[in-house]
Amino acid sequence: MELVSSTRCFDGEQRRYKHAAKSLNCDMHFSIYLPPQMLGREVKGQTLQPGQETPPVLYWLSGLTCSDENFVQKAGAQQFAAKYGVAIVCPDTSPRGNSDTGLDRDGATVPDDAEGAWDFGLGAGFYVNATQAPWDKHYRMYDYVSGELPALINEHFGVNTERAGIFGHSMGGHGALTIGMRNPDKFQSISAFAPICAPSDCEWGKKALSHYLGDDDTNWIEYDACSLVRALLEKACRDAGRFVMLRRREGYDHSYSFVASFIEDHIRFHAQQLTR
Amino acid sequence: MELVSSTRCFDGEQRRYKHAAKSLNCDMHFSIYLPPQMLGREVKGQTLQPGQETPPVLYWLSGLTCSDENFVQKAGAQQFAAKYGVAIVCPDTSPRGNSDTGLDRDGATVPDDAEGAWDFGLGAGFYVNATQAPWDKHYRMYDYVSGELPALINEHFGVNTERAGIFGHSMGGHGALTIGMRNPDKFQSISAFAPICAPSDCEWGKKALSHYLGDDDTNWIEYDACSLVRALLEKACRDAGRFVMLRRREGYDHSYSFVASFIEDHIRFHAQQLTR
Repeated sequence: MELVSSTRCFDGEQRRYKHAAKSLNCDMHFSIYLPPQMLGREVKGQTLQPGQETPPVLYWLSGLTCSDENFVQKAGAQQFAAKYGVAIVCPDTSPRGNSDTGLDRDGATVPDDAEGAWDFGLGAGFYVNATQAPWDKHYRMYDYVSGELPALINEHFGVNTERAGIFGHSMGGHGALTIGMRNPDKFQSISAFAPICAPSDCEWGKKALSHYLGDDDTNWIEYDACSLVRALLEKACRDAGRFVMLRRREGYDHSYSFVASFIEDHIRFHAQQLTR
Repeated sequence: MELVSSTRCFDGEQRRYKHAAKSLNCDMHFSIYLPPQMLGREVKGQTLQPGQETPPVLYWLSGLTCSDENFVQKAGAQQFAAKYGVAIVCPDTSPRGNSDTGLDRDGATVPDDAEGAWDFGLGAGFYVNATQAPWDKHYRMYDYVSGELPALINEHFGVNTERAGIFGHSMGGHGALTIGMRNPDKFQSISAFAPICAPSDCEWGKKALSHYLGDDDTNWIEYDACSLVRALLEKACRDAGRFVMLRRREGYDHSYSFVASFIEDHIRFHAQQLTR
């Protein structure tokens, strides 16, 4: 794991790392915000609570065309991560290979949409494990986000390895809902901004899921939040005392202006879920 | 004036406009945040105070390589502009001409550094009125920021035309200090993040000022904050009851992580100065 950059932000550290991702067979970048509590720094007007030096960690999944950097630059989340004492990890949205060459660890090219479309291929991994060639060798973002990356974070950073949340925007909201619902042991809180929650029923989703997973849409169910909800969540919510909160925000569009306007609500929610 | 984009943000509107700038002889973009109070919208937990519907306006000047968009995307300022009830206008950092062609209104090219350097020419107007060819036909950012743009804003938006502040980062901090100090009638509050405050004494400044203003450095004084302070400010501060607040923030670098970490302090300061 190689530290690419580090900058102080709201008394914590905003860092970017590069590492060799086994599940994706190529190098990947991720960003991580370490709140001041983790660095032994005091937060204005707060006393360090027991356990705050090993804070819960939130995984943020970005939308189509984004990288690990959009959220870091545009969401204004660091102030609230510092305020509520949580770390935030941002993976990229697809495998990309080497930054300069686009090659994987064996010297092969990480494939992209034939016409370079923005809604499929690079920047559009849809957080699935592809089963169809040529995507199946690299496009395994489900394994990466649900397994390899959390293991790496838990090994190298002093976060609470028992407490994690997952959230995201648009395609990343889809990732957060599907990965979160399928891994309740790993993620104890889930939230999403304007998620693609029924990819089997929309053009973006149909295009991506048919390419990555094949035309048999029964194989899409485990990557479709609405299907998962119907199959699992209603019962699970009742049984496990979970709850769902749905808010509609009039007048906002699909941009990071929207995300930034409500990011505090989400971070506060996760922090409360993960520290009680 | 043409509206390029508008997005709701913290219950206000983040907008971007294009207009023909006479002082620069080319089209220019600027961004403006209109706080919710201006739009007749209530802010959570606040009652609209008398006068808040015509709020003071702050002019943000960005640094080298920036456009009118960096601050909008990275500083996390909108939440505090909404909280304190101020509008924020962000001009570009130099003339650029037409977005596609780089041409001015007469079909001539807006000149750039011969080698496309990042610290001179496009994106590096240094907020001066150039006196040297070929820069003197377009590079008149001092006039634009101190005169033409405020006149445009005052005409088209419902801001308080008697109350304005100016602030910025790096080269933009230099612009805020020099323009603010030379126009106390137009700007009642000034602040800066890590400003270039002695351009006559540093490489960036010497390069820019000699190209824009010629080699005689007595012509640089009015664009050098330290010189202005020595000549004007000490006496003016005493006489006019003005005050200077200087903070050093250990461990922070020169990036927007630094700006975002302390933007609330600056916006609160301006709001308090401009609404008392």
